[in-house]
Amino acid sequence: MESPSPSGVLRVSPDNLSAEVPVGTCLLDALTALGVHLLAPCGGEGTCGKCRVQARGSLSPVGVGEAQKLGAENVQAGFRLACQARVEGDVEVVVPASSRRPQMRILLSGSMQDVELEPAVEKKFVRLAPQTLSEPYSRLEHLRRCGDLRADLHAELPVLQRLPAMLDEAGDAVTVVLCEDLLLGVEAGDTTAECYGVAVDLGTTTVVASLVDLRTGRELAHAATVNQQTQYGHDVVSRIHATMEREDGLQVLQAAAHASVSRVVQDVLESTGVPPERLYDATLVGNATMMHLCLGIPPASLGHLPYVAAVGHAVLAPGADVGFHGHPAMRVYVLPNIAGFVGADTVGAILAAGLDKNDGRIRLLADIGTNCEIALRLGERLLVTSTPAGPAFEGARIACGMYAAPGAIEEVHIDGHVHWQTIGGQPPLGLCGSGLVDISAELVRLGVVDATGRMLGPDELDGTVSPEVRRSLVEREGGLAFVIAAAPDGSQIVLTQRDVRELQLAKGAIRSGIDLLLEHAGLTVDQLDEFVIAGGFGSYIDKENAMRLGMVPRLDPAKLTFIGNGALVGARLALVSRALRRQGEKIARQAAHLQLAHTPDFQLRFSEAMLFEA
Amino acid sequence: MESPSPSGVLRVSPDNLSAEVPVGTCLLDALTALGVHLLAPCGGEGTCGKCRVQARGSLSPVGVGEAQKLGAENVQAGFRLACQARVEGDVEVVVPASSRRPQMRILLSGSMQDVELEPAVEKKFVRLAPQTLSEPYSRLEHLRRCGDLRADLHAELPVLQRLPAMLDEAGDAVTVVLCEDLLLGVEAGDTTAECYGVAVDLGTTTVVASLVDLRTGRELAHAATVNQQTQYGHDVVSRIHATMEREDGLQVLQAAAHASVSRVVQDVLESTGVPPERLYDATLVGNATMMHLCLGIPPASLGHLPYVAAVGHAVLAPGADVGFHGHPAMRVYVLPNIAGFVGADTVGAILAAGLDKNDGRIRLLADIGTNCEIALRLGERLLVTSTPAGPAFEGARIACGMYAAPGAIEEVHIDGHVHWQTIGGQPPLGLCGSGLVDISAELVRLGVVDATGRMLGPDELDGTVSPEVRRSLVEREGGLAFVIAAAPDGSQIVLTQRDVRELQLAKGAIRSGIDLLLEHAGLTVDQLDEFVIAGGFGSYIDKENAMRLGMVPRLDPAKLTFIGNGALVGARLALVSRALRRQGEKIARQAAHLQLAHTPDFQLRFSEAMLFEA
Repeated sequence: MESPSPSGVLRVSPDNLSAEVPVGTCLLDALTALGVHLLAPCGGEGTCGKCRVQARGSLSPVGVGEAQKLGAENVQAGFRLACQARVEGDVEVVVPASSRRPQMRILLSGSMQDVELEPAVEKKFVRLAPQTLSEPYSRLEHLRRCGDLRADLHAELPVLQRLPAMLDEAGDAVTVVLCEDLLLGVEAGDTTAECYGVAVDLGTTTVVASLVDLRTGRELAHAATVNQQTQYGHDVVSRIHATMEREDGLQVLQAAAHASVSRVVQDVLESTGVPPERLYDATLVGNATMMHLCLGIPPASLGHLPYVAAVGHAVLAPGADVGFHGHPAMRVYVLPNIAGFVGADTVGAILAAGLDKNDGRIRLLADIGTNCEIALRLGERLLVTSTPAGPAFEGARIACGMYAAPGAIEEVHIDGHVHWQTIGGQPPLGLCGSGLVDISAELVRLGVVDATGRMLGPDELDGTVSPEVRRSLVEREGGLAFVIAAAPDGSQIVLTQRDVRELQLAKGAIRSGIDLLLEHAGLTVDQLDEFVIAGGFGSYIDKENAMRLGMVPRLDPAKLTFIGNGALVGARLALVSRALRRQGEKIARQAAHLQLAHTPDFQLRFSEAMLFEA
Repeated sequence: MESPSPSGVLRVSPDNLSAEVPVGTCLLDALTALGVHLLAPCGGEGTCGKCRVQARGSLSPVGVGEAQKLGAENVQAGFRLACQARVEGDVEVVVPASSRRPQMRILLSGSMQDVELEPAVEKKFVRLAPQTLSEPYSRLEHLRRCGDLRADLHAELPVLQRLPAMLDEAGDAVTVVLCEDLLLGVEAGDTTAECYGVAVDLGTTTVVASLVDLRTGRELAHAATVNQQTQYGHDVVSRIHATMEREDGLQVLQAAAHASVSRVVQDVLESTGVPPERLYDATLVGNATMMHLCLGIPPASLGHLPYVAAVGHAVLAPGADVGFHGHPAMRVYVLPNIAGFVGADTVGAILAAGLDKNDGRIRLLADIGTNCEIALRLGERLLVTSTPAGPAFEGARIACGMYAAPGAIEEVHIDGHVHWQTIGGQPPLGLCGSGLVDISAELVRLGVVDATGRMLGPDELDGTVSPEVRRSLVEREGGLAFVIAAAPDGSQIVLTQRDVRELQLAKGAIRSGIDLLLEHAGLTVDQLDEFVIAGGFGSYIDKENAMRLGMVPRLDPAKLTFIGNGALVGARLALVSRALRRQGEKIARQAAHLQLAHTPDFQLRFSEAMLFEA
């Protein structure tokens, strides 16, 4: 046997790090392995000169090209290009801040983690020198050299075909649009200030878009619309059937998804004045059925046992193929799903809630949409399940229900009088998810709705109920209803007996899912350190009301947190952080899925969980 | 400062290797770094169980999943999964042959290097287990797990859209078609025996295809045709002008290139009975102008100073976009070019001649086509240049010229009588490159053509010339001609005075390029260790004749080698070896280009080099 390969000790300041490194190792690689990330846009080819460090000790001699890049003075001062120097023994290195990759951390509203800004799409301004006979590089390579762009830069065929015209038009001052190793475009002049992306949550019922400035991570606008697929059914099962019932079913549903996405994207662009050609990147979340329909992948296998997706991993698709109309080379990153009924929206919500990492605490997330997905972080384990909640909390199948948009009643309180508040303070138009929870919980508290969910007539109420509340109870076709407010058009905004039944179905499904998942993990509610609720309800739900309705189990209110539309926040996180894209893909692979909805236990628990707190 | 990170010594048998490895390093990574490549189709996820090694010493404990994969007996015997075990101190490892990546080396005819077979496209037969509720993976993920396919497997949107139908049709016995991390398709049953690729050389004058069995690297058929672009001009400059003269010029020339490629690919498929859908991969070489025209990239910048390509790096394009009609997910790998007039064909020829590596010898390559590219390997340097040879050696602009196809006269010898031999022994139809060299050299040797290239009349010849040779000299419109043979249709196959002039122009350009490149490098011919000639002449050129004509300088014939169509051989190498694709990309970046054709020196040398050996 040979003797062990010789090695040297590498010490790094001011990081105070050290490691044993085999002789011959490139200094840049050794620093990267230690977590010290240097600028090296040229890919370590020695041409950009950005990875300078001050070094002492046994290193390979300074090369000619390296000396030229550094300049004599710097060579004298002990500077090296980390990508060119090789370790030959013990080495001490000082890494200046100017050579390090900048780390910009942002705090995204709704997200429980702060994020290093690292979008997939970036721009760079490049001044092009004239080309001469002695530099016979291709025009693309010349652009790469002038811009110190990475060595493995390439482009797809449509961009290559347009490249000569783009360069001819742009002249010598150009802005390149880059997606990692891919060139997306070349623009005339300096357009680096205009770099936008869009995150979209394609829900079964509601589609929401968030326009993001990729340079800052800030949201510039958001918009919502009803998913145009609702005309083909209110839940995923009916949508799946619709694709199978007619020859062109998949095409029709795909077109409806694209039209909905296109609508919200156009809305955010118009409200901000951002031109479509400045929209370079997009992320998309939704449940597995929505992702299949949007991508044009037949979803049939999601409609029958064992309820599996055709495709579950992250997909990168050309924007135009998925209903996004932005820059011609725009691509859409579709987040991965975990299982047939635990989709990319859940992966997004898990990212938003920070459940992707084990921080030692036991944490539970319930993402409430037309389906309710529940995730439990327990040490290294991440358990997920889903239950069919129905669209009640998004306003569908509720007499006066509406999505959380301006004019929606988002809070209700009854103290003898009925007080309410709308989103944006506008005249009341309907009832969104958080308003539905409030009014229902208040009526339970006052005894107007009993534990079984029955709405009592004015004559059945006890004496403590105020005359105003009694008067608000009216007889409507199909049963009793409670009048909350009058809309500007004179119509009444009410909660009906049927609405209460819808709410019971929804909250029963959610609660039985939570209980069964905890049981499966051998936990009681008290052992939870954190309980996160996600969903597009409007305002955050009143904690006491949610517990009174039994949506969530009784626990210390301090442990209960709301993060709003977690799926959309997750999509925004994936838009501004490539690291979180990878993290989402890891979750999707590693989470353990529990099939609850089809167990006998679930049916039993479900009927119990439909009751309200007495 | 911290103390150095702890490390351990890793010893590997039977390789007799050792290295110092930081504690915590994954054993698989450590072995890979030592050049010991293990099977790990699952990507190191611990699920395929292929990376077993026998280990002793300080390693992390055996995990539950690992033990299940290995089985109790193997755990007892000290086996580990290298991807799961982490180094904790000194370790000794025995790596069995069954855990190593197989290395299959092939010898490609025409190639001066032997190659490890490592095609980009591979097939694998997979038996699919039924999916159950407890395994809610997507169908794609289920396929991946059943087939032990790599963890980062994914597919492009069109494949994903077809996936459910492909799986439904295939049932439980399927063959997957893979291109590294990309799934290209799923086929019913076991089709692993049918896996084909095609290498194409898109020459200015001639287009050649070679059909290759990707499992063996063997050529199954080849076919040639005239580039249909020739109707728009005989050289690249006229083709470039054609794209600019009319609005749809680029489209017309692209369509002509695609039709030519499509023709030869169809020919090789039909002659072997391989169905188009079994053609999964392709490589394409040609000069920079041909590549631009085939890809639909405007080539204008190649037509004026400083003569640069728009795109020079390797391009991966969908087959259908480049004129290749094979499997729907087929992609074409277009080799990179070095400079405007030193294209992918030269990169191919350099690979074929083995000039991509420095073996310590001084080697020169001349690739003779419509352009002649010359490459010189001198230590770590690779110098390249090009000269405009014209299409004479491919039979164009020669009275009875033809491409090296059956019936072409490929060898001529005169000993009083005129002897000739055709390709395939068929009746003579014309004269290919090697035949042109032979007949011209023989006429120079006999004094029928003088040093200036003038053909002498019968009455000017000296007495040693045989009566048959004298009778072969005839008067034709435009001057003298020498009759070589009679074609089956009664016509005469001749070499005309004009043909000799065309040959002089061609060989003058080639020779002056060779001489100037050697001079630039400060070398004399005698210092060359090897002189390789590539080109589609027909048979290999007679060495003495090539030197008599002055195409190549006088040197020891043992140093002179012919490799045939080096560009096409290079394309075949890139088809069967991903390592050689990377090697070609490295050459393209690192070669130094010399601009010769536009120097005053060149014009002077050129007129000298047109003379024959006295």
